[in-house]
Amino acid sequence: MSFEYCNNLKFTVFGQSHSSAIGGVLDCLPCGYAIDQAALQEFCDRRRAVDELSTARREKDEIKFLSGLFNGKTCGSPIAFFIENADVRSKDYEKLVQTPRPSHADYTSSVKYSGFADYRGGGHFSGRLTAPLTVIGGIAKQILNEFGVKIGAHLYSVKNQKDTPFDLVNPFVKQFKAGEFPALDSNAAKEMQKIILSAKSEGDSVGGIIECAVTGIPAGLGSPNFDGVESVISRLAFAVPAVKGIEFGNGISAATLFGSENNDAFAKNGEKVVTVTNNSGGINGGITNGMPIVFRVAMKPTPSINKPQTTLNVETGEMQELTVGGRHDPCVVVRAVPVIESVAAIAILDMIIERKKDELNKGE
Amino acid sequence: MSFEYCNNLKFTVFGQSHSSAIGGVLDCLPCGYAIDQAALQEFCDRRRAVDELSTARREKDEIKFLSGLFNGKTCGSPIAFFIENADVRSKDYEKLVQTPRPSHADYTSSVKYSGFADYRGGGHFSGRLTAPLTVIGGIAKQILNEFGVKIGAHLYSVKNQKDTPFDLVNPFVKQFKAGEFPALDSNAAKEMQKIILSAKSEGDSVGGIIECAVTGIPAGLGSPNFDGVESVISRLAFAVPAVKGIEFGNGISAATLFGSENNDAFAKNGEKVVTVTNNSGGINGGITNGMPIVFRVAMKPTPSINKPQTTLNVETGEMQELTVGGRHDPCVVVRAVPVIESVAAIAILDMIIERKKDELNKGE
Amino acid sequence: MSFEYCNNLKFTVFGQSHSSAIGGVLDCLPCGYAIDQAALQEFCDRRRAVDELSTARREKDEIKFLSGLFNGKTCGSPIAFFIENADVRSKDYEKLVQTPRPSHADYTSSVKYSGFADYRGGGHFSGRLTAPLTVIGGIAKQILNEFGVKIGAHLYSVKNQKDTPFDLVNPFVKQFKAGEFPALDSNAAKEMQKIILSAKSEGDSVGGIIECAVTGIPAGLGSPNFDGVESVISRLAFAVPAVKGIEFGNGISAATLFGSENNDAFAKNGEKVVTVTNNSGGINGGITNGMPIVFRVAMKPTPSINKPQTTLNVETGEMQELTVGGRHDPCVVVRAVPVIESVAAIAILDMIIERKKDELNKGE
Amino acid sequence: MSFEYCNNLKFTVFGQSHSSAIGGVLDCLPCGYAIDQAALQEFCDRRRAVDELSTARREKDEIKFLSGLFNGKTCGSPIAFFIENADVRSKDYEKLVQTPRPSHADYTSSVKYSGFADYRGGGHFSGRLTAPLTVIGGIAKQILNEFGVKIGAHLYSVKNQKDTPFDLVNPFVKQFKAGEFPALDSNAAKEMQKIILSAKSEGDSVGGIIECAVTGIPAGLGSPNFDGVESVISRLAFAVPAVKGIEFGNGISAATLFGSENNDAFAKNGEKVVTVTNNSGGINGGITNGMPIVFRVAMKPTPSINKPQTTLNVETGEMQELTVGGRHDPCVVVRAVPVIESVAAIAILDMIIERKKDELNKGE
Repeated sequence: MSFEYCNNLKFTVFGQSHSSAIGGVLDCLPCGYAIDQAALQEFCDRRRAVDELSTARREKDEIKFLSGLFNGKTCGSPIAFFIENADVRSKDYEKLVQTPRPSHADYTSSVKYSGFADYRGGGHFSGRLTAPLTVIGGIAKQILNEFGVKIGAHLYSVKNQKDTPFDLVNPFVKQFKAGEFPALDSNAAKEMQKIILSAKSEGDSVGGIIECAVTGIPAGLGSPNFDGVESVISRLAFAVPAVKGIEFGNGISAATLFGSENNDAFAKNGEKVVTVTNNSGGINGGITNGMPIVFRVAMKPTPSINKPQTTLNVETGEMQELTVGGRHDPCVVVRAVPVIESVAAIAILDMIIERKKDELNKGE
Repeated sequence: MSFEYCNNLKFTVFGQSHSSAIGGVLDCLPCGYAIDQAALQEFCDRRRAVDELSTARREKDEIKFLSGLFNGKTCGSPIAFFIENADVRSKDYEKLVQTPRPSHADYTSSVKYSGFADYRGGGHFSGRLTAPLTVIGGIAKQILNEFGVKIGAHLYSVKNQKDTPFDLVNPFVKQFKAGEFPALDSNAAKEMQKIILSAKSEGDSVGGIIECAVTGIPAGLGSPNFDGVESVISRLAFAVPAVKGIEFGNGISAATLFGSENNDAFAKNGEKVVTVTNNSGGINGGITNGMPIVFRVAMKPTPSINKPQTTLNVETGEMQELTVGGRHDPCVVVRAVPVIESVAAIAILDMIIERKKDELNKGE
Repeated sequence: MSFEYCNNLKFTVFGQSHSSAIGGVLDCLPCGYAIDQAALQEFCDRRRAVDELSTARREKDEIKFLSGLFNGKTCGSPIAFFIENADVRSKDYEKLVQTPRPSHADYTSSVKYSGFADYRGGGHFSGRLTAPLTVIGGIAKQILNEFGVKIGAHLYSVKNQKDTPFDLVNPFVKQFKAGEFPALDSNAAKEMQKIILSAKSEGDSVGGIIECAVTGIPAGLGSPNFDGVESVISRLAFAVPAVKGIEFGNGISAATLFGSENNDAFAKNGEKVVTVTNNSGGINGGITNGMPIVFRVAMKPTPSINKPQTTLNVETGEMQELTVGGRHDPCVVVRAVPVIESVAAIAILDMIIERKKDELNKGE
Repeated sequence: MSFEYCNNLKFTVFGQSHSSAIGGVLDCLPCGYAIDQAALQEFCDRRRAVDELSTARREKDEIKFLSGLFNGKTCGSPIAFFIENADVRSKDYEKLVQTPRPSHADYTSSVKYSGFADYRGGGHFSGRLTAPLTVIGGIAKQILNEFGVKIGAHLYSVKNQKDTPFDLVNPFVKQFKAGEFPALDSNAAKEMQKIILSAKSEGDSVGGIIECAVTGIPAGLGSPNFDGVESVISRLAFAVPAVKGIEFGNGISAATLFGSENNDAFAKNGEKVVTVTNNSGGINGGITNGMPIVFRVAMKPTPSINKPQTTLNVETGEMQELTVGGRHDPCVVVRAVPVIESVAAIAILDMIIERKKDELNKGE
């Protein structure tokens, strides 16, 4: 569903790719926090399509607030906003009802909604829905900033090209600017862009991995069982279209290690309890230990490609060649970097609010 | 938290490793389904520690029902049950309050609960809490059986030793028996056992990966955004201690492919819409396309090892050597196989119930 | 909070009395239902202030849809809409921060939101927030219509003047039109209007009771314990400002009866199981028995009156005379009639969706 | 459903009247609070049937804890407990499947659960389910005690006999003892008992009203819209079988007043902001203003009476005389007094936890 109820924050995203607007509502923020709307717009502009690396669909994605701020500050009332859909070409999509794109939601949404789904541009399943998610995450990020929490993500890899990975103990949480290519290593950045443009020129797409780190977090965030940090972040991350895998700390490679290799010894750094290594990605038993949270999400290549493909005509029952029209990103991973930061920001702000309750514990 | 509210099923697990019992409650099942209690007990026995591959703690883990069945069938009232904790040795754990185990929840739970956490045997963070989760999942699995849905998992790998992986298009969903080592390939099974016993003899532990498949599912399960199949399964999977990564279909490797390589062409098999490949793991846009769901969870090696380690004494602030007493599994991955099946069963049953509502769509 | 998660429908209302807009989002409707937007606007116009019986604030309250409809029908994507706030006079309210209106939310919202609340026009606590609730309810009502469910409410009383009460067994569920005074008896209507205008001329306000009936409902809606029909309706009804009491069936008067007087004997009417009397208001054990649901909500008189009152100056700590400026309704009960119908519609549609799941019960 | 997720506390009650046990689980309590188990048992004993005023079914209702306490204190893990059902006579109920009791859940539960409901003793719909609710409320009440919050209820009326009502501004929150008749005025108590015994001797039952007050609460508890104090308390109150109405403050009578009569002027009492009158029952805009919360719930007479009644034989379709066997309370209102206190305690503790988050507001 398009509603998510974290334990504290409540929010929803709405809209279809070609409806008059997309948008969102965010409730249960603490009050009195100034939201820098220009900075928020700039953060969201990081996911805008602006250059040859992205879709030819050009949206200004200007955030229009309807409610929730008073004198520029959070006031206890939900923040509601919308973003107009301007550059829509709905005709491109009509044939996809009969010939659903391979690995896209065309078919599954048609089944689920019994043929009533808005198929234009992927409808509710479009990557455009990550725009309101990024607005919500951007607001969360600004508030987290006041708690000393920093969140940054980068392109860990595009296809087989890797960027410099984060140091798990001390990740370099760079804040990329709108228009900047989100890789830490400039040579890797160049190679990644080459790969993307090359795929584009073939009418193809490529996948990649985003690595995200959260620093400045206290120990004690999260809850056991179903509200552990990994549970909450992964639930939100898989809401981002094309995400097919997630791992925390040293992640899947931990499965190949001995406990004696993988364990992170506790130590002290001044007054602060730390761990010497951070294979756990800052999380033990679902709860933060005060070390940086580091996680990676793997995204598949965009299923919408211009190269001819074979698919089923669901009306005739025959296989046929499909050349997808419309305008598509050759690598959505680039634009998804701030979306993943947003996912982390929402999860962590929710847990910082949750943690406040623990001050009711005796002796606090 | 220990409560989880899927969209339809509501359940909770309770208990600490050394409380008088652990257990759970499961509500909102459809009515009139006979629960085969002997079969359920046998399913749950798959996660019992019975041999030298497991902890020396021996629990009968007999399920005692308190309510929710009438004439052996679900009756609309919540199913409540408990499992006694019998073989507890609480003294082993007292020193861990001062010298928290590396990569374990000793430290984080102490922070979160302000020193009031039940530290004995890992308290609420113990792997024992997966016993009630398996009961709940076992009930779900029995009901799913009546809908033609089969769920099976195996040890995809232990450390670097791999089992035969599932064929994504047509996975072999074997139902392992209690006491049977859950690998498909007998040579791989032998090697895995050697690795585990070798680690055990060193006082060490090893990690591994579990692969799980769900077959016989209709298209149209799941919801966009925050209730996609991947979101729901991952949230539950990360509630299982030691899980650090999850991937669906071809998963993380999709990030290294072109769209033209990764896309699954739709086709027909008789009257059924299928895909030729299944890199998507049966899920497009968060919704099932009717192909098998396949996912893998990576589990780190148990942090509790008998080998001496260095950690912090949080009271003195000094590093010191720690030799963990207590009884621990050298490889929790083995016993976790039915737990992961349970996670999948809960998620899918919830979505099958959810899907029933779609019959209110016009024309259905 | 402004989010409500019924078991199936998810929705939120947003906005403050003087923010640029108010609005709402509604998710999880069944698909393919045509929404008659003109009829919806007319339904919502029933709560608009149009004549001397209402506040002088004149809002067009035109519903602007942003998403969620495709070809005029529900399409599985959330419906988002807003209503502009046009006729605002924010200066009237500044002094109320220091001298909170008696029995209004000025003081409590200031405490809860630590002085950051939007105090203009009552902010998020304004009766204006019932406009989006009525849009949501109006949509629900249209869909319920296709299931044969009718919902109607009337002014059971204004101050001491009563209308003809509903026959509990066979209530006359009249659909009032916009602009029509919502009493069934024309003499009662005239007297009620006199009472309201007389109070208005004194700068005072009056309370009243709304009676609402739901007919055409099947047996079996609702759930035991915390999701009984009364629980769900009452939770939503108390979200309407000024509601201070609610009762179902013969309600509070049941407390004065013997069981032998109060019990509703089951009987048959053709093939349908009915009850001879309907003191239960159609609900036994939280679940509908197929008879009409009848309930009444009592609303206090609007706290905002023009008559001079004494209140505290929270800054000086002195009592002082307060004459409330702004424009207020002398009797909000009149405009609240469609709001209460909306509350009932949302609750019942949610339960009809919920009930669909029961078809998974064996033998259905 | 039997699960309730307040914004912070999560809990469930389980069991049927004749299952082996009933019980509950309560999660998300603050840590380190000692639970006085003897005092809790005594509180719960107030709802036990012990004398001629109650049902002849005699249950010890001894609370058996399974988990959640460590060294007698809350430890962050959910509290799970059960109460055995000992004195069951299931044969009494079989005929009620064919001849459902008027105004009881026999019929509606049979419809909802498609004939699979546990009909014995009312199954999941039995008043016995209020026993675990009272355990949960009793725990909440003990913790609230540490915050200076007191909760007390009394029999406002039994049939037409009234007790001394609470002074809304300064209610006398008496803590009744187990076995004590819960009326404040001893003459009223005697008359009420006479009424009950007289009804019992006729094989009949009587209804009544419970009035509950909460004192010592801070201003600022509760939330606007769907989580106002009235919304939360009413939802829980209607989960108690036989409750058919609820009102807050002067309640339904507010509907007959002018605003100038009904408004509660703010004033100061020392440093504390108070109101001169308390017609609002301590709640403005859904949020507490610091004055006592006072509410009343009206309960219908028990539908199970021994007097012969007419009802439908749902199998034959004929009306027939029904004489209900089984053992029933002539006036459940008496035993429900601590249940209503429990409902209030759960709601208020949840809001006190929720309120802690408001300390994140700027300047707090």
